[in-house]
Amino acid sequence: MSVFKEKLGLYTDFYELAMAEGYFYCGKKDQQASFNYFFRTNPFNGGFTVFAGLSDFLELLTEFSYSSSDIQYLKEQGFKPEFLDFLKNFRFSGNILSVREGEIVFPAEPVLRVDGNIIECQLIESLLLNIINFESLIATKAFRIKLVAGKHIFSDFGLRRAQGFGAIHASRAACIGGASSTSNVFAGKLFGIPVSGTQAHSWIQSFDTELEAFRAYSEIHPENTILLVDSYDTLKSGIPNAIIVAREMEEKGHQLKAVRLDSGDLAYLSKRARKMLDDAGLKYVKIIASNQLNEHVIKTLLKDQDAAIDGFGIGTELVTGKDDAALDGVYKLVEIDGLPKMKFSENIEKNTLPSKKQLYRYFDNHGKFYRDAITLENEKPEEIEVIYHPVYPELNTNIKGLTFEKLLLEVVTHGKIELKKQSPMDIHHILEGRAALLPDEHKRFISPHLYKTGISEKLMETRNNLSKQIKNLI
Amino acid sequence: MSVFKEKLGLYTDFYELAMAEGYFYCGKKDQQASFNYFFRTNPFNGGFTVFAGLSDFLELLTEFSYSSSDIQYLKEQGFKPEFLDFLKNFRFSGNILSVREGEIVFPAEPVLRVDGNIIECQLIESLLLNIINFESLIATKAFRIKLVAGKHIFSDFGLRRAQGFGAIHASRAACIGGASSTSNVFAGKLFGIPVSGTQAHSWIQSFDTELEAFRAYSEIHPENTILLVDSYDTLKSGIPNAIIVAREMEEKGHQLKAVRLDSGDLAYLSKRARKMLDDAGLKYVKIIASNQLNEHVIKTLLKDQDAAIDGFGIGTELVTGKDDAALDGVYKLVEIDGLPKMKFSENIEKNTLPSKKQLYRYFDNHGKFYRDAITLENEKPEEIEVIYHPVYPELNTNIKGLTFEKLLLEVVTHGKIELKKQSPMDIHHILEGRAALLPDEHKRFISPHLYKTGISEKLMETRNNLSKQIKNLI
Repeated sequence: MSVFKEKLGLYTDFYELAMAEGYFYCGKKDQQASFNYFFRTNPFNGGFTVFAGLSDFLELLTEFSYSSSDIQYLKEQGFKPEFLDFLKNFRFSGNILSVREGEIVFPAEPVLRVDGNIIECQLIESLLLNIINFESLIATKAFRIKLVAGKHIFSDFGLRRAQGFGAIHASRAACIGGASSTSNVFAGKLFGIPVSGTQAHSWIQSFDTELEAFRAYSEIHPENTILLVDSYDTLKSGIPNAIIVAREMEEKGHQLKAVRLDSGDLAYLSKRARKMLDDAGLKYVKIIASNQLNEHVIKTLLKDQDAAIDGFGIGTELVTGKDDAALDGVYKLVEIDGLPKMKFSENIEKNTLPSKKQLYRYFDNHGKFYRDAITLENEKPEEIEVIYHPVYPELNTNIKGLTFEKLLLEVVTHGKIELKKQSPMDIHHILEGRAALLPDEHKRFISPHLYKTGISEKLMETRNNLSKQIKNLI
Repeated sequence: MSVFKEKLGLYTDFYELAMAEGYFYCGKKDQQASFNYFFRTNPFNGGFTVFAGLSDFLELLTEFSYSSSDIQYLKEQGFKPEFLDFLKNFRFSGNILSVREGEIVFPAEPVLRVDGNIIECQLIESLLLNIINFESLIATKAFRIKLVAGKHIFSDFGLRRAQGFGAIHASRAACIGGASSTSNVFAGKLFGIPVSGTQAHSWIQSFDTELEAFRAYSEIHPENTILLVDSYDTLKSGIPNAIIVAREMEEKGHQLKAVRLDSGDLAYLSKRARKMLDDAGLKYVKIIASNQLNEHVIKTLLKDQDAAIDGFGIGTELVTGKDDAALDGVYKLVEIDGLPKMKFSENIEKNTLPSKKQLYRYFDNHGKFYRDAITLENEKPEEIEVIYHPVYPELNTNIKGLTFEKLLLEVVTHGKIELKKQSPMDIHHILEGRAALLPDEHKRFISPHLYKTGISEKLMETRNNLSKQIKNLI
């Protein structure tokens, strides 16, 4: 993932540097801080979020330093000499705790925690948010597609509609969420993701006839021929020509792999095409569909319309996370030199939870996810009996005796990455394992059941006391 | 913009390479092709699109080649030796004609044309679409914001919510569209864009009191202090503390530059804050607002609510192009070895326009944009009397004698970039000049008037003849 020629210390919001300089000259540079990453809303009106982007972020973090040209640039922006000297040797040297990449997570949970001096914690904020917000968005989108696609494979075809170089992360996150391959060769090489694709309309058009175009392609790529059948007329021309070529391929000992529908009514055309292929004795030829697909369209194609589609190529909506386009993740200071800190709001739901914290997941008797608990760092989860709704403490849940797991694990210690390298496909495997434990009612698209996360009594007391102190100051 | 360590020949869809290999082995590699880039719909239900991304695309095109490691990777993907030898020396060597970056353009217009051998034209498709679709989307979004913000400046604050490295293009395109600065320091350095920003809630929280935090910041950055006033309570704490610090700054010969509102009702709070500042004799202290802004919110704040806001910081929706997330631009083969080519569709509106083409803009008697005309390459625009609706030829317009401009200009000749370097701010200047010539009815947000683009009689005949030929084949 260290793809840039440049160092990444400038991959940050200007105010992070302005604040860092401020901390430096205020004598605060050695203050020990703790920040939490969390988001407020599941994307796509869904019931869960897939956490992704962690290993990209950590790898980029190793490049988060300043070249002499960066220092010169900052000098021109008015930053002062001693601070620039400090930046010359800047490296993140703190600790990061995180849930695993591929974990299923929920709003308001501190899914990642950064502990370090306040300057290093501050400077890395924008990079962290940029990568993790986006990859989590896309991994979630892809997994929603996977939920409806089931055994039908789907590929990321989104490079041309992705948001510039965001395509690189999008393809990775799409595979974490469940895409089986990508058309994006750059991402394929970078992350070891399978790459796929065959032909565009231009291939077909570049020949005098569609049949010639199909035939030529099958001769050059006999092991991997997928014919795009809608250049002229899908049922009158594309499928009949594909059938001719499939038979010619058989004579040479090959098999046409698939046809691809890219326009028109995919349900109708796929069923008609299936019948034509079957009648021609070509049951093995698969049907791939593309064109403005998303989880809702795929669901209706497969569940309501019995479309005869074996696989999907999905572009725009997958790689841009339409209709949301962003996960609303934030990164907030929760502790400084051992003192709890919070962002106070008139609206208690927007108050942040103070202090270094840990996140636990409790399981029901069937081994399914039951409740998540946010606690102070050193609480003993086996001793917690009751957890409380963060806003309405009268809503509480007894979790005594339930089995649990600690979710925040140390992934960076004193600046050193502890996490071992995983491919997007490995991470998808983790996701599949976790998602199997998420009750179905949280997976549905329409009004999914709200997964409940509570806070421990000690955390609630810490927050309430701090809240009172702040109110007294105003 | 050549930011990557890697060469960019793999920044393409797999099928481009599969087709390129096909062309290579079919003996088509020296066929001369022409492709057009166009989009089908203005984003955001708007009446125009700002064309952007051209110089980024061209700069990246100079990196579009294959390293030995890329060749090895492609070998592992099954590409054949002679083709890989060919790729080793691959460089785009064709011609590119384009409208200027910052031009106002409309659906279905061939705003960019690539002429070259079919392999080079094909391989660069994904990169071209990826960059130009995205930057045009964001430049359009930003200019819509500029249209309502008027003299009020706005900054791009979107890095944390941008789609991964798409942030880099987003900040550039936001400035093309009208942002006066960006928080994204990486993009600031790369493109020479002004950078801005001051403090987050974490700065305030890291001190015992808000007043201390404000004071400390003003002492370190006395020339550039913008105080974030909503950490505890905007009107009871933030503004009163900002007033104290502003007076202290005055005593030292400085001026508080602004306060920033980041939550709550921005109309109400800004008017109350304005009054408090004015009553304190601080008329010069500006009010900046941020928090989930877009062109519609800004319009209502300024036009309906008389909000006392001097400038805006805009993040998510600006840098992701919400609610659209992608411009639907495509890239289609239109000619090969002198023969016109088109993508045929049952739906005549989706037929592409064949042949190498030119694009002209005709002006009305007031010098405003009146009609655009798509013609064959070598038609004489001064001789064209009538242009036709592409689908309904009975809808036609007499343009005889009107002044006109040629819009497609050569920007790459035999692989060499002819375009001189321009900053995003230079391009914004071009945009302002062009937008001044676009009648207002195309700029409104609700049901904007449709700008009309017609085709010449010769182009219509070419298309109709080709269309008949194709129908006869089916």
